[in-house]
Amino acid sequence: MLKWLDNSGKERDIVISSRIRLARNLKNYKFPTKLKKEEAQKILEDVKNSMINGKSNVTEDYTFFKMKDIPVIERNVLIEKHLISPALTEKTETGGVILSNDEKVSILINEEDHVRIQKLGSGLCLDKCWESSSNIDDVLEQNLNYAFDERIGYITSCPTNIGTGMRASVMMHLPALSLTNQAEKILLAASQLGVAVRGVYGEGTKSMGNLYQISNQGTLGLSEEKIIDKINKITMQIVEKERSIRESLMTNQKIALEDKVLRSYGILNSAKVISTQEAMKLISNVKLGIELGIIEGINSNELDILITEIQPYSIQYITREELAQKARDIKRAEIIKNKLSNK
Amino acid sequence: MLKWLDNSGKERDIVISSRIRLARNLKNYKFPTKLKKEEAQKILEDVKNSMINGKSNVTEDYTFFKMKDIPVIERNVLIEKHLISPALTEKTETGGVILSNDEKVSILINEEDHVRIQKLGSGLCLDKCWESSSNIDDVLEQNLNYAFDERIGYITSCPTNIGTGMRASVMMHLPALSLTNQAEKILLAASQLGVAVRGVYGEGTKSMGNLYQISNQGTLGLSEEKIIDKINKITMQIVEKERSIRESLMTNQKIALEDKVLRSYGILNSAKVISTQEAMKLISNVKLGIELGIIEGINSNELDILITEIQPYSIQYITREELAQKARDIKRAEIIKNKLSNK
Repeated sequence: MLKWLDNSGKERDIVISSRIRLARNLKNYKFPTKLKKEEAQKILEDVKNSMINGKSNVTEDYTFFKMKDIPVIERNVLIEKHLISPALTEKTETGGVILSNDEKVSILINEEDHVRIQKLGSGLCLDKCWESSSNIDDVLEQNLNYAFDERIGYITSCPTNIGTGMRASVMMHLPALSLTNQAEKILLAASQLGVAVRGVYGEGTKSMGNLYQISNQGTLGLSEEKIIDKINKITMQIVEKERSIRESLMTNQKIALEDKVLRSYGILNSAKVISTQEAMKLISNVKLGIELGIIEGINSNELDILITEIQPYSIQYITREELAQKARDIKRAEIIKNKLSNK
Repeated sequence: MLKWLDNSGKERDIVISSRIRLARNLKNYKFPTKLKKEEAQKILEDVKNSMINGKSNVTEDYTFFKMKDIPVIERNVLIEKHLISPALTEKTETGGVILSNDEKVSILINEEDHVRIQKLGSGLCLDKCWESSSNIDDVLEQNLNYAFDERIGYITSCPTNIGTGMRASVMMHLPALSLTNQAEKILLAASQLGVAVRGVYGEGTKSMGNLYQISNQGTLGLSEEKIIDKINKITMQIVEKERSIRESLMTNQKIALEDKVLRSYGILNSAKVISTQEAMKLISNVKLGIELGIIEGINSNELDILITEIQPYSIQYITREELAQKARDIKRAEIIKNKLSNK
């Protein structure tokens, strides 16, 4: 279900995924919030045509969707799969998205900026994501007239994106840092180095499943390569710290750790009702157990995919019906048990 | 390991066991606290001889032990098996016990009273226990000179036992009453009818494993049969209440109940470390699940036996070594997993 996520990429024991996002706007148009509907429609068509009907050899791999043509559940599934943003789904009249068939690339149209190019990849692979999104940027630029200033760079709707218009982010699984209450401290230190820290689904979800997203705060004054270099370095520092704590836990608290991991696995295998939050916490423990050899025969990457599959809208997409929270909690428990028994 | 506990007896879905205890003292001796050592030794021998070397046809089924000859771990195992009292184990010099080979009968010597006859049985079977303990009482009385007053009955060390000297108690498993926070209320009402309420191992253990012991508070003014009749009636009232709440839980909260039961079973099957208290709570949930058909293929009686086997001293008896708490918690988890996998 999460096509773009596999076991490839570096530091895969800790880094789930990497993402590059480029914000672009078109010259001679106001920013999306100030656009007239007809102008927005024109942009939608222009961007679509630049990619889908362009002369690039990649065009056949892409599909265009208007936001209004995507049913509500599917829209939210795209959010849960990290392919579009909540802000885009609010643009029911003017929003659109171009998705690559492998779902690694999504181009958001008329969200906060006219165009946002996003490239996702498994593990730590910001360089590859940058290369790829830069190529897509070139394809689009052949037909679109970007708002670009020689001195300051790309002009964006929000000043925090101005310059490179790039956000390079890395999703990390930090159970050992969390378990030893060091995650907050480490991530606070990272934020003081100009890095933003978020949970898996944005600001409010910091503690879910011990998943943390870090990304560059500044987009101005450094080249794309320098920004990526910085995020790579900070990521590696956190990765090394997480690894060393995992090792020390295995040395000093082996049995308590085994107990935590095996109980989590036991509950996932037996619960009849489970919330997203609890499931993510337990899956995090099981993932840690797999990385440390406490549990064998389960694929950690499958659990990363499972985390998306058990989100509220993904569950309803699987069952093909609207489900209230209680019914989702029951279905979630079923999906998890099935996944674990089919490993 | 718990020889006397089986699936026999009435109301076995709720009543674990019944117990009759008779307090007796010998004429011409002070009560145990005031006895000289030689006198206590004499009583020890006299009671032993009355039973073991008596003319009854039951004598061959009994074994006599001096407290001081029983190693500390074994002494405490006898407490955990409900065969002797903590008070008796403190009488290292003068205490003794006569145990029947099936462990249904224990005769405590020089505890609070000179003689205490105890008969245990599975399920609700106070009548049978009374009949049997009364027979043993008769055997002893052939050789012993009981302190008995025609007007008030048997004379006991503590005035609360005077008269019949009888304590009739019933151990009940009340998970549905506990789950719905009605156990305290029901048991408080029972206590106002002259019934004492205790946990599985006395006063301080009330909440462990949802096991509650009720017994008569008064021993004076009613015949043994009347006392038993009263305890039987109150027991049946509690049993009916527990059953009706179990049914209503299955009707109104089936999924939440299944979730609780299955998670408990999952944790018992996977934990690497577990405390007595937590294990008893989870076993209680699984027992409820068995009674309600949520879990199949496990014998509820085996779980009742398991509760004794996972007590601190019983674990050390099984492993044949002294274990600190942490080591016991690990061994306890092992014993439980073995039991559940061998059902």
